[in-house]
This record gives sequence, structure tokens and C-alpha cells, in this order.
Amino acid sequence: MLAEIITIGDELLIGQVTDTNSVFIAKQLNKIGVSVYQITSVQDDKAHILQALKNAEDAVDIVILTGGLGPTKDDITKKTIAEYFNDTLVKDDSVLENIESIWKQHIKTELLQVNKDQALVPSKAKVLMNKLGTAPGMWVEKGNKVFISLPGVPYEMNALIENEVIPKIKNKYNCPFILHKTLLVYGLGESALAARIEQWEDALPKHIKLAYLPNLGQMRLRLSAKGEDEAQIIKDVDQEVNKVLPLIKKEFFGFEDEEGSVEVTIARQLTKLGKTLAIAESCTGGTIAERFTVNSGASTYFNGGVVTYATESKINVLGVSKTDIEMHSVVSSKVAESMAKNTMQLFKSDFAVSTTGNAGPTKGDSDAEIGDVFIGIATKNNVYSEKFNFGNSRVKVVNKAVNKALEMLLKEIFKN
Amino acid sequence: MLAEIITIGDELLIGQVTDTNSVFIAKQLNKIGVSVYQITSVQDDKAHILQALKNAEDAVDIVILTGGLGPTKDDITKKTIAEYFNDTLVKDDSVLENIESIWKQHIKTELLQVNKDQALVPSKAKVLMNKLGTAPGMWVEKGNKVFISLPGVPYEMNALIENEVIPKIKNKYNCPFILHKTLLVYGLGESALAARIEQWEDALPKHIKLAYLPNLGQMRLRLSAKGEDEAQIIKDVDQEVNKVLPLIKKEFFGFEDEEGSVEVTIARQLTKLGKTLAIAESCTGGTIAERFTVNSGASTYFNGGVVTYATESKINVLGVSKTDIEMHSVVSSKVAESMAKNTMQLFKSDFAVSTTGNAGPTKGDSDAEIGDVFIGIATKNNVYSEKFNFGNSRVKVVNKAVNKALEMLLKEIFKN
Repeated sequence: MLAEIITIGDELLIGQVTDTNSVFIAKQLNKIGVSVYQITSVQDDKAHILQALKNAEDAVDIVILTGGLGPTKDDITKKTIAEYFNDTLVKDDSVLENIESIWKQHIKTELLQVNKDQALVPSKAKVLMNKLGTAPGMWVEKGNKVFISLPGVPYEMNALIENEVIPKIKNKYNCPFILHKTLLVYGLGESALAARIEQWEDALPKHIKLAYLPNLGQMRLRLSAKGEDEAQIIKDVDQEVNKVLPLIKKEFFGFEDEEGSVEVTIARQLTKLGKTLAIAESCTGGTIAERFTVNSGASTYFNGGVVTYATESKINVLGVSKTDIEMHSVVSSKVAESMAKNTMQLFKSDFAVSTTGNAGPTKGDSDAEIGDVFIGIATKNNVYSEKFNFGNSRVKVVNKAVNKALEMLLKEIFKN
Repeated sequence: MLAEIITIGDELLIGQVTDTNSVFIAKQLNKIGVSVYQITSVQDDKAHILQALKNAEDAVDIVILTGGLGPTKDDITKKTIAEYFNDTLVKDDSVLENIESIWKQHIKTELLQVNKDQALVPSKAKVLMNKLGTAPGMWVEKGNKVFISLPGVPYEMNALIENEVIPKIKNKYNCPFILHKTLLVYGLGESALAARIEQWEDALPKHIKLAYLPNLGQMRLRLSAKGEDEAQIIKDVDQEVNKVLPLIKKEFFGFEDEEGSVEVTIARQLTKLGKTLAIAESCTGGTIAERFTVNSGASTYFNGGVVTYATESKINVLGVSKTDIEMHSVVSSKVAESMAKNTMQLFKSDFAVSTTGNAGPTKGDSDAEIGDVFIGIATKNNVYSEKFNFGNSRVKVVNKAVNKALEMLLKEIFKN
């Protein structure tokens, strides 16, 4: 079963907005055995949308469009869909009721004609009721193919995918089972890893696909398989995983969570151990904390964190010694270790990780080279730090520092 | 001048990785007058890539591909490009030298044949030297069209776009001037705003396009224009902006920075005023701090922040009174205000913003409803807070809280 996701909106094509909708949709489709063949972002332009619909109809079974369903003049998806199916727009009373109810509850200003017009849908479409917003989802069948149009607002789209689209697709099609299993690997480059596991890779059965996903010091190795027999697929993939693990014994750090990544692995292990974490960030500016707290359940193991961006806050908030800063510089092993240790004590946690560095583009409060980062780890029995240089791109320095801090934390926590 | 961006990799189509490459490329192309017609994400599959190349060649002048240039077996872009142009791969000595030099400096293990093979490029391609990695960029011309292939690793791709691709495109093509100007608007829904400015919108000259970008309580209104005469385009857009501003006097809060958003506007204003900011986050878990620190120059106005996720850290780190928490609950106006005030004092800043709430999915340390969030603001003369309920999706609650906190901060800072 193949799908194409078409995201509509000029904001995507001028780089003003990142397309996270298709990431969410692709994940949900994969879970029920639908492969996404292509993701296409197109302009708010009728001819272009019509062309994209035609190409998608030729290539796949399921076409999902997002965006362009708002009440304003730049929103043209609905009219374009009607044209594509030689259809007309008709008022749907249940959608109008939903709009009026949302207006009464949340908006409270006058209901305008443009809002009422959001109740117009192509006559051939089944409405997918959007309880979170005024733009209805639509489901149009043509032969054995289906075209689904959803609002572009992420949380409205998410709810419609989960509550309407996925159950309906499962009901209509007999989908195979898709399994992805991703191994987190540290300490081997892409080609060194490939050389290490070459014989195994060459002997992989045809229905299992392998992918290397390198990312700033971290490597993910993904096995993907698809088939009718769920139990067999799980068994086949597990068998291959069991064969490759002895080859990367030292470098393997766990499986990536279906929804998450290395921080999810850390979170799971901390929860299992009943241990807690605190974080002190300078150059990474809150990014590490955010990586943990974005997932639910963080309150069981995450006591908190500080972003001590200014040198003075390292002294005032974290009690880093002024003399140490003067003697060793604010970007130093000494300061990274004090930050980690004092944060662990301040938040009464079992572990703490700290970052202090110069992400550039200019030198800050220290003489450290641009790209220099010290990462500190504190545990009940030990405090240590490592020095890195992550180059001279600010974004790269921050992201490499975040990844490295997570790697050090992962290693430390799995040591215990 | 039209371009298509083709991003290659199964990881995009199973939702494992968000396509940020095309966001960056689209922004850079726009700046030099190249419009992105379409963004297409395709699988690591030869037939599919060939089809995408054909479709793109039919539609646009410039085709940019990213991904699939690594040394491992799942990387097939280079071979596929050679096939598309009936070309063969030949060794490029300068690329081999670059690979050897990177190996010697950074990797230090044995240089394998698969790494040496990264020096093979189609004979018709001009090499775009990738100083940050082993996969070379490639530039292939066909008639007046150009096909550019870049590695998928974001920072390598970024550098090649900035240093090689953009200068070469500017040199080869005579591009028009593209201008986007985005107004930040708070306090009006999409349709209410559209109704307010309808007459103005209807009278817009044909070469200026308008877009509404609603986002969880914030609205962005974008004017876009394209033309040969840069001075005239700037004048035309400014003239329209000057006409619309009086219509949204109360709701307009500034222009979105070319690269940024509301936090960039806040940052600019704080820097201008010579004032500083500190942040105390509970349910937003570091996201607000990260929004500021991701941009360079944060150290001039951002003193720091705390993520007091656990109730105990609110007491230990921020000195929120235990009695207040017991009397009013940890998710309360009282606690939000204490957090803001104490953070301002702790970090010696001029302003502070705080969040405390329950993002769900389960109730935490308080009796607050899921979705309840209090946002506090502290200034030298005033402390206040507001209560919100942002619904029951965790991601939505966090993002709405972040947006609302930024909105309140923006309003406070522009008041001064």
C-alpha cells in the first residue's frame, strides 16, 4: 500500500515554515503498514496542486493533502479538489454546526460569511469532522484510491489523522506489517561501521533493508522489513539484530525508541533505576533540558536545570567560584565540573551534566577558541569532564555539544 | 527563475528525520531571487530518483538534490545521476586529496576503499569541494538547466550552498529580486484579521501576494513581491505596509526578522534598550530559553534561566515559598509570580518570564487541570500573571505556552 503526502503552502517553499506535518503523517502511516512513496510540497497555486494530484494518483493508492483550508483568500485547496473531481461545493450542516459551536465557545466575535463558508465541501467528499478547528477534513474515493484533505494546523491535523484517517484506512485496505528497528551506535564512523558489519549486511535477507543514519558523532543503524505475517517479520528482524550485535558489542548503546531517540533511552534507564537528573547549560542554552521535557513522564526523573548563560549567573546561581573562573577561564574543565557538581547538589539529583563553551560566531566572556566546549558529568562518586572542539558553525557547535553530552550521559548511566 | 529541491532518503519517508535541509536551501534561494516551485522527498530508490529528476527537469531551471552521497550501500544518488545523464563515474584527484586530508586530520583510522570511492564523480560534473566532509558536491549543466547534488549532512550542505551553489547560480542566471515582509500580529483570528483588512487586500497590486500564517495564538501576515527593479519592489511593499498598519494599530507588534521570529524581535528590543532577561520554566521545560539562545548575540541580553521541573526545585533553587505551594498549588498565579520575581532577582535581570502548568498527559504534582498554564512576568516595578488552558495535547500545551509567554514578554518590553 503506497501513499503520497502533499503539503500545500508558499510558506514551505520560501523556507518560512518547516514541514513537520509530513513527519507526523509518515510515522502514523508506517505504523499501519502504509509506505510513504513521496512527500511533495507545492505552492498555493491551482495549476500546481492539480498537477501534483495527477502525479500522485498515477503513483500511489492514498493521497493525503494538508494545508490551504483556511477561511482567507490564499486558501484554495478545497476549490481545487472540487475542480479535480469535476465536483461542486455544497454546504454541510454538521460542519456548520461545528463552526458555530467553536465560535460560541472560543471566539465570541461575530461569525463572518468567510467562516460560514468553511462548511462548504465537495459533494463527493465524506466529511472528517475537525472538532479542534473550523476547517473540515475531507475523504474522497475514486475507484480503489482515496484522496484525503486535512487542515495544515498541526494539532488539528494530528487529531484528524489519529481519530479519523488511520482507522478509516485500516478499515478500507488490507495493509502489510512494517517494522523498523533502529540501533544507536557511538564511536564508529559510517564507513568503519559498514566495514565491520559488511559480511552480515551482504547476507541480509532480501525483505530486510538496512540504512545508515550518521548525525554529528552519533550513528543510527536502521533495519526495515515489510510483509504479511507480523510474527514472522518480527522474528526475522530480531534474528538479524542478534547476529549484528556481537559485531558492535562495544559501540551499541540501545535501541532507539519508536518515537524518540537517545534521550528516550536515557529516560527509560533512569526511570528503571529510580534515579534523577539535573542539567546545567551554558552554550547549549536549554536545548538539552528541552530534549528531555518534550516527552511526557519527564517529571519522574528530571529534577530540573539551569541555563547559566552569563558568567555572573554561573557564580550567583550555581556557586561556581569566581577565582576558578579567573584562573581557568569560564570555558574550562574546572568550571564544567563545578557546574555539574553544584547543579547535582542544588537539584538534589543523582546525576548532572553540564556544558560550557563558545558557540561563536564571536568570542564571548573567555579566551576559548570558537567551537571549544567542555562537558561535565557529576555522579554521587565522581566528577569529570571532557574537552571538544566542534568547529565554527554556531548551530553545529550547539548540536554537537548536545549530542556529545547525551552520549556521555548515556555511557555514564548504563555504567551504573 | 524556478528551482526544485529533491531530498533523498527513506528516513524522511518513514518520519524518522525532519527535512530541515530544504528549509535552509529555500531561504537561501529566495534571497537571490530564485523561487522554489516544489520540494520533493523521495526514497533511496533508483527508479524513483530518475522519475523525480525527469519531472523536475520538465518544470524548473535549477534542480538541487540532497542526500544519498555517503560511502555505504544504501547511498545511490551518484550512480543514479550518472545514469540519468548517460555518464560514467571517474576519479577526481582533488576530491581524493580532500578525503585523505580529512582522514588524516580527524578520523585517523585506515582509509577504506569505500571512502576512496567517494572521489568518483560523473565525468560531466563540476566538483563543488566539500571541505567539511568526504562526499563532494556536484554541478551538472544540461542546456540552460543545472542539476546540483549535495550531501545530506546539514552543516556540510549549508556550507556548500553558501560558498559554492549560491555564488555560482548568481553568476549563471540573471535572477529577479524577491522580497518577503512579515508582520507579527496578536489578538485577531485569521478571519477577523481578513475582514478588518479586506478592502486593502482587494486593492493590492497584482505583483504583491498576501499570505496569512496562523500559529497557536500568533498570526503572521506575509507580503511577497518579485520583480526586476529592486528599489521599486522595496518601495511598493513599503507603501502597502504603510497602508495596512493603521488598520491593525493595536494588534501589530513588529516585523518578523528575515531569519527569525518573535524572539528575534524581543532580542532586538532588549539589546536596543540595554536591558536583560531571565527565564524560569516549568512545563515549557527549557524551550523558551532555547528559542533565545539558538540565535547568536544572546549573551548581550539573556542572563540565564532555570528549568524547575520538580516542585522541590522550585523551592530549593528559586526560593518559592513552600506554604504558597501548599496553599495555592504549584500550578497557580502565586507560584508563577514568585518564580518570575525570584528569577529576576537571582539572575539580576531587568525582566523575567515564568511558566508553571500541567502539560499532561497525566496530572502531576498539582490538582490543576491538564492544559492549565500560568505565565508570570516580572519587571522592576511590577509582577503579574495570567491563567490559560491550552487543551489536552502535550505538544500543543507546551507550544501554546511558549508562544503566549513570548507574546506577553513582547508586549511588556515594548511598553517600556
